[in-house]
Amino acid sequence: MSESKKQKLLNVDTSDGTDSANSKLKDEFRFSEDPSLEKIREIQAVFCRERNWDQFHTPRNVLLALVGEVGELAEIFQWKGEVDVGLPDFSQEERDHVGQEMSDILIYLVRLADRCRIDLPSAVLQKIEHNAQKYPVNKAYGNNKKYTAYAAEDAGKALPNGDQ
Amino acid sequence: MSESKKQKLLNVDTSDGTDSANSKLKDEFRFSEDPSLEKIREIQAVFCRERNWDQFHTPRNVLLALVGEVGELAEIFQWKGEVDVGLPDFSQEERDHVGQEMSDILIYLVRLADRCRIDLPSAVLQKIEHNAQKYPVNKAYGNNKKYTAYAAEDAGKALPNGDQ
Amino acid sequence: MSESKKQKLLNVDTSDGTDSANSKLKDEFRFSEDPSLEKIREIQAVFCRERNWDQFHTPRNVLLALVGEVGELAEIFQWKGEVDVGLPDFSQEERDHVGQEMSDILIYLVRLADRCRIDLPSAVLQKIEHNAQKYPVNKAYGNNKKYTAYAAEDAGKALPNGDQ
Amino acid sequence: MSESKKQKLLNVDTSDGTDSANSKLKDEFRFSEDPSLEKIREIQAVFCRERNWDQFHTPRNVLLALVGEVGELAEIFQWKGEVDVGLPDFSQEERDHVGQEMSDILIYLVRLADRCRIDLPSAVLQKIEHNAQKYPVNKAYGNNKKYTAYAAEDAGKALPNGDQ
Repeated sequence: MSESKKQKLLNVDTSDGTDSANSKLKDEFRFSEDPSLEKIREIQAVFCRERNWDQFHTPRNVLLALVGEVGELAEIFQWKGEVDVGLPDFSQEERDHVGQEMSDILIYLVRLADRCRIDLPSAVLQKIEHNAQKYPVNKAYGNNKKYTAYAAEDAGKALPNGDQ
Repeated sequence: MSESKKQKLLNVDTSDGTDSANSKLKDEFRFSEDPSLEKIREIQAVFCRERNWDQFHTPRNVLLALVGEVGELAEIFQWKGEVDVGLPDFSQEERDHVGQEMSDILIYLVRLADRCRIDLPSAVLQKIEHNAQKYPVNKAYGNNKKYTAYAAEDAGKALPNGDQ
Repeated sequence: MSESKKQKLLNVDTSDGTDSANSKLKDEFRFSEDPSLEKIREIQAVFCRERNWDQFHTPRNVLLALVGEVGELAEIFQWKGEVDVGLPDFSQEERDHVGQEMSDILIYLVRLADRCRIDLPSAVLQKIEHNAQKYPVNKAYGNNKKYTAYAAEDAGKALPNGDQ
Repeated sequence: MSESKKQKLLNVDTSDGTDSANSKLKDEFRFSEDPSLEKIREIQAVFCRERNWDQFHTPRNVLLALVGEVGELAEIFQWKGEVDVGLPDFSQEERDHVGQEMSDILIYLVRLADRCRIDLPSAVLQKIEHNAQKYPVNKAYGNNKKYTAYAAEDAGKALPNGDQ
């Protein structure tokens, strides 16, 4: 990705009160700034090295551990029926549990990227840029179809007598 | 978590050449510093708002999307047999694919935390602190047992004639 | 499991019109009788042998393939919100897709059991018997708590002034 | 599927000693014949009805429960490195655990099919037939590529000067 594109993505301006879509974000829920993905990677790398665990942390071992944690997160939600944004009907204990399982997923995902030597933050930026191209606002607005559906529609329009 | 504990975790010193375990980390693979988890959250929140997608992003919808992406990552590794650290036998195309699927997992995990109003970076710090207590170096060294196994062993020692 | 217990489980009588709970089952949706799990196992064993695929079908390879298929099933349901019994709002194409992904999961699960030399039908009978003990009707009626919650409640009752 | 095709699949002959690929199957590991998929479905339907659990068993609830069980199976394999066919290095306790988690997956998969009103055994037969067409022996022999790779190769051959 070019440096200018990267800066444009990183400096997305959400503070301009004149933008009706974005202005609502000003009072919104936010994450803490720390730790960064690199800091989590570093802490876990030291943690595993101190315990002589690198020998166990092959890519597929960590991948299966990640699958296990996703299963544990799913279990919290499994008998809930539809759940509202913000988890208003969850007890504090359940909310804490959700945070712990999400953390386990993130820790193993970061560890997996480290063991695969994949620069995860950089890969995410590229994917975000790619998604912006796949899902242009004018086509994706209020629409949960997969992007391949737009391509099919476009192909149809390009062939005025297309009988797809 | 107390502020001092948090600072201790965030300031883990890996640069001291006198520490044999940590000194090796100096030349190690690292992630890019940007984007932060909060930046990813913010970019995705704007992205979804612009497309009027918040209506689709209920917690369980995003959770199932996360499960789907974990499946796609598993598919890349499924016929590989054991895979070495750094993915030396993967083609560049496969490496890129791994980075893309990891990114999709991270994007949906961040989005899920946002929609659940869970401060993911803060939850991760707490989990890391918790893991350090569950897996003390002296018991966990070179040992991939679950922490509950230590508790059982300790219980056995506390009962000198215990026959468990 | 004793032969008599096994026969009792296999001969569960759902045809007696005097049993209010079970009588409703008479008109109910049923599966086709064929193929059996053993037949699926056998067909897949021959299929893989003819293609010289046994070399790829190590337990962890097949396990990751299973994870991939579960992800594909999840993707069909991911943007749906709550879905009713019988999938009344799914198109025929979506219903077929659901059946295909369920089939892939079953095929890989059977293959995984075969490659692990686990007698899956026998293991299922044992698990069903075990579940009947863990979830007695009088405690589990209309209750989606995990069985460990009953044990905790029982312990509480056994200690009338217990402060657990 | 036509009845003759179905019969051909169900009557796959593995007993002919003159077929070098299949003759080895004669002494092979087999599953027990019971219970059938329909019997498992029926037992679970009665089990859930007796406990008034149908109210909890919406398709997405059962799907998330299935994801949870897949996670539990993955956890047994997560620190193992590559595992041999037949699990020779697993303890009896670990083997039993594998059988239990596979059973939980099968029970929830059958329950999910029941709640979606999908005839799982019939869907599996169709999928097996479909796979036989996608992976003809002459192209798939000793080859773990996805079937789409064959199509690409065929397209390439059909266009002798194709520059794909």
